[in-house]
Amino acid sequence: MQHLITPSDFTNEEILNLFDDARMFKDLQSNLFLQGKLVVTLFFENSTRTRSSFEIAAKRLGAEVVSLDVGTSSRSKGETIFDTVANINAMKPDAIIIRHSECGLPGSLVEHVNCPILNAGDGKNAHPTQALLDLFTISEHFNANIEGKKIAIVGDVKTSRVASSNLELLPRFGIEPIIVAPDHFKSEDSAFRQVTFLNEIINEVDIVMSLRTQLERHSEIYYTSMQEYAKDYCITKDSFQDRDILLLHPGPVNRNIDIDDEMLLDPRNKILEQVSNGVAIRMAVLKKLLK
Amino acid sequence: MQHLITPSDFTNEEILNLFDDARMFKDLQSNLFLQGKLVVTLFFENSTRTRSSFEIAAKRLGAEVVSLDVGTSSRSKGETIFDTVANINAMKPDAIIIRHSECGLPGSLVEHVNCPILNAGDGKNAHPTQALLDLFTISEHFNANIEGKKIAIVGDVKTSRVASSNLELLPRFGIEPIIVAPDHFKSEDSAFRQVTFLNEIINEVDIVMSLRTQLERHSEIYYTSMQEYAKDYCITKDSFQDRDILLLHPGPVNRNIDIDDEMLLDPRNKILEQVSNGVAIRMAVLKKLLK
Amino acid sequence: MQHLITPSDFTNEEILNLFDDARMFKDLQSNLFLQGKLVVTLFFENSTRTRSSFEIAAKRLGAEVVSLDVGTSSRSKGETIFDTVANINAMKPDAIIIRHSECGLPGSLVEHVNCPILNAGDGKNAHPTQALLDLFTISEHFNANIEGKKIAIVGDVKTSRVASSNLELLPRFGIEPIIVAPDHFKSEDSAFRQVTFLNEIINEVDIVMSLRTQLERHSEIYYTSMQEYAKDYCITKDSFQDRDILLLHPGPVNRNIDIDDEMLLDPRNKILEQVSNGVAIRMAVLKKLLK
Repeated sequence: MQHLITPSDFTNEEILNLFDDARMFKDLQSNLFLQGKLVVTLFFENSTRTRSSFEIAAKRLGAEVVSLDVGTSSRSKGETIFDTVANINAMKPDAIIIRHSECGLPGSLVEHVNCPILNAGDGKNAHPTQALLDLFTISEHFNANIEGKKIAIVGDVKTSRVASSNLELLPRFGIEPIIVAPDHFKSEDSAFRQVTFLNEIINEVDIVMSLRTQLERHSEIYYTSMQEYAKDYCITKDSFQDRDILLLHPGPVNRNIDIDDEMLLDPRNKILEQVSNGVAIRMAVLKKLLK
Repeated sequence: MQHLITPSDFTNEEILNLFDDARMFKDLQSNLFLQGKLVVTLFFENSTRTRSSFEIAAKRLGAEVVSLDVGTSSRSKGETIFDTVANINAMKPDAIIIRHSECGLPGSLVEHVNCPILNAGDGKNAHPTQALLDLFTISEHFNANIEGKKIAIVGDVKTSRVASSNLELLPRFGIEPIIVAPDHFKSEDSAFRQVTFLNEIINEVDIVMSLRTQLERHSEIYYTSMQEYAKDYCITKDSFQDRDILLLHPGPVNRNIDIDDEMLLDPRNKILEQVSNGVAIRMAVLKKLLK
Repeated sequence: MQHLITPSDFTNEEILNLFDDARMFKDLQSNLFLQGKLVVTLFFENSTRTRSSFEIAAKRLGAEVVSLDVGTSSRSKGETIFDTVANINAMKPDAIIIRHSECGLPGSLVEHVNCPILNAGDGKNAHPTQALLDLFTISEHFNANIEGKKIAIVGDVKTSRVASSNLELLPRFGIEPIIVAPDHFKSEDSAFRQVTFLNEIINEVDIVMSLRTQLERHSEIYYTSMQEYAKDYCITKDSFQDRDILLLHPGPVNRNIDIDDEMLLDPRNKILEQVSNGVAIRMAVLKKLLK
C-alpha cells in the first residue's frame, strides 16, 4: 500500500503519470473512478481551502467523504490522536486525509492503519499535494520544458511547509530554487542559493513563488508590522518589470503584504489556475492511491 | 447562464414551469436529474433550516454538496469575500448557493463566476426561493386560482427579505399585498396599501403571512419587549375568527410572539407545508439552473 | 413503521436476522441497498465517534446523509426541539438519527414523524445500537454459543446508557450480567447481582465490559480524582490474570483510568473490533428500518 506523506513517496515517473491523469481531470467534471470508495478527512488545523479541494476532488471521482470536525471530537474527551486514528481505521475507510500542526505526525500513522494516508500539511514539514500542484502548474505553462528553469521562493521559507515540499520536489525535475528572504526567514538547508532581495535575481528567474506571510509563527519579533515587512517583500509590478515571469502563491494571499492588488490582476499571476490544478492533482493522487 | 438573485430573474412563464417541476418533486423522493453535478453552499449567516433545505434538495436530485463552514474559513485569515468566491469558483462547482448579511452581495458576484449563483438570502434585500415557495404554497392551495387574492403581510416588513421578495413576486400573479405593521415597521415603498392593525383588513384577505419578529434588527427601541409587541401582532384564533384564511410564516416561528400555540395547531396554518414545498421548489430551481 | 429507541423494539428473532446482515456487511464495503434514501443526523450532544459510525454506515449502503450541526441551528433562535424535528420531518427524510441528553426524548418524537427514528443515545436511558454491537461482538467471538455466559459490567453503571441497554438486551440471550461498582455507581435495579470489586467474580466471568468513567456526571464528589477511582477499577493485566476473558469498552477509553496501557495492547481486548462491528450493526439496522 502506498501513502503520500512527502513528495519523495512518488518517483519522477509516477509523478509524470500523475500529471497525465491531472490533465485528463482538468475540467474537474464528475466521473466514477472511485465509486464505492469512502474517504475520511481529519483536519486538526482549520483549512477550508485545502479541505474543500480534497473533498471536491473525492466527490468528483464518485467517492463518499466523511469530514470529521476534530475540534469538537473525542479529543475533547482526552483521547490521544493515535486512539482517534485507530478508531477511524477500524471503521475501514478507503483513505484518510490528515492535516496536523505537528511535523511528522501523518507519517507516523502509516504503520497503524490499513489504508492510504494522505498528508494535507504537517507543521512546517511537508505539503506534498501543494508541491505537486505547483510543479504541475509550472509544467503546464512551459509545455513540460521545465529543465533548467529557475524559481524564486520569496518570504518566510523557514517555517513554510509549502517551501519545504517544493524545495524537495522541484530540483528533481531540473528546476533550480533560489530562496529570497530576510536572514531570519532563510532556509537552514545550505544546499540552496539564498539571497536577501528579489531584485538581486529577478533577471534570472522564470517563476516567482510568493509565500503566505505568517509573522505570528515566530517567537521573536522581526518586524513591528506586516506592513513593514511588505515594504521589502510584497510583489509589485515594479518587482517584475516587463519580464515574462510566472507568479505563484499557495493562498490565501495577504493582499498588499505578499502581493499587491495590481499584481493580483496581472495575467502573469496564476494563483487561480493553481486552485483549479489543485483539485485536478488531488483527483489524480486519490485515483492513484485508492484505485 | 442564469442566476437567481431576486424573483425578477425569472419570468412568470418560467415560474409556472418551475411550479410544474415542483409539483412533480412534491413527494421529495430521490432522482438522478443532477447526477454528476456538484453544488457548493456558502453561508455567511447561520441557517440550519434554509441550508438543509437546499442540501436535501440537491442530494435528492443526485447532486453532490460541499458545505463550506465560512465561520472557520480563510476569512479568519483576512481574505476578502471576493477572493473566497474566486477560489471556490476556480474549483469549478456547478452552482454556488450563498447567504450573506450584506444586501446585494450575491448579485455582485455574478460577473466573477462561471456557474449559477443562487441567493439564499442577502440582508433585508431578497430571499427569492422563499417567495417562490410561498407563491407555490398559495397557488397549490387555491388550485392556481390566485388572481385577485389578497394577502396581509404582518410584522416587521421594513427589514424583512421575505417580505421584500414577496412584495416583488406576488403582485406579478395578481395577488394584492396589504402590509400590516406599526409605523416604524412599515415598508418605505408607497406602492402598497399599509394599515396598522390586522383587524382593519381581516375580512378582506385570503392569506395572512406572519413574519419572524427580530426586534434586535432595529437600532431604536420601539418595544420594551417581544411580549409587548405580541399584544398587537401575535396571530391568534381571535384574529382569524372563523374565516377560511391561509396562514403562512417563513419560520422559525417565535411561539406566542408571531403566532400563538393554538393557531400553530390550527389546520389553516400551512407552515409545515411551506417547509415541504421549500425543498420541492429548490429542487425545481436547481434543476432549472443546472440542467 | 418501526423505530429503534431501545433494544426492546426488536424481538430476539429480529436481532438474529440483524446479525446475519451485520455478518454480511462485516468488511464494511459499499453497496447500494439504500440508494435513493436520505438520512438526517441530529446530534444535540457532541459525538464524533457515534455520529461518524452512523454516517459511514449510511454512506456505505449508498444513502445520502445530511448532518445538522444543532449547536448552530435555529435552536439559538429559540425554537423548541419539537419544532426543529417537525421541520426536518416536513423535509421528508427517510430516517432521523438523534442523540440528546434528555432521557426519553427520541422515543417521544416517534408519533410526530413519518419516518423511522434511530436513538443514538439519550441521557442515561438507552444506546440501543451500542448494546446490539456489544452482543454481536460477544456472539461472533463465541460462535453464537452465548447462553450461560457471564459478563462483568464495571464502573459507573448508574449513569451509563451503555450499561442500561446491555442490561436490557444481554439477559434476553442468556447472558448473565454482574455489576461491578462502588456503591454509589451501582444500579438501582435490584434484578441484577452486584459486587464491589472485580476480583470477587473474575473467576466466574467470560466477558468484562469496562465503562467510560465520567465523574463529572455526579453532583456529589465520591473521589477526589479519576486516579483515585482508577486504583480500584482500572482494568489491568493483574485483574485478568491468565483467564481467557473478552474485554469490551464502548470508547473512548480513559487510558489508565478505565483500562491501562498494557491491557489496551492485550489481544483479549476487542475494542477496535467493537468499532468495526458498530458500523456493520448500524448498516444492518439502517437496512432493516429503511428498506
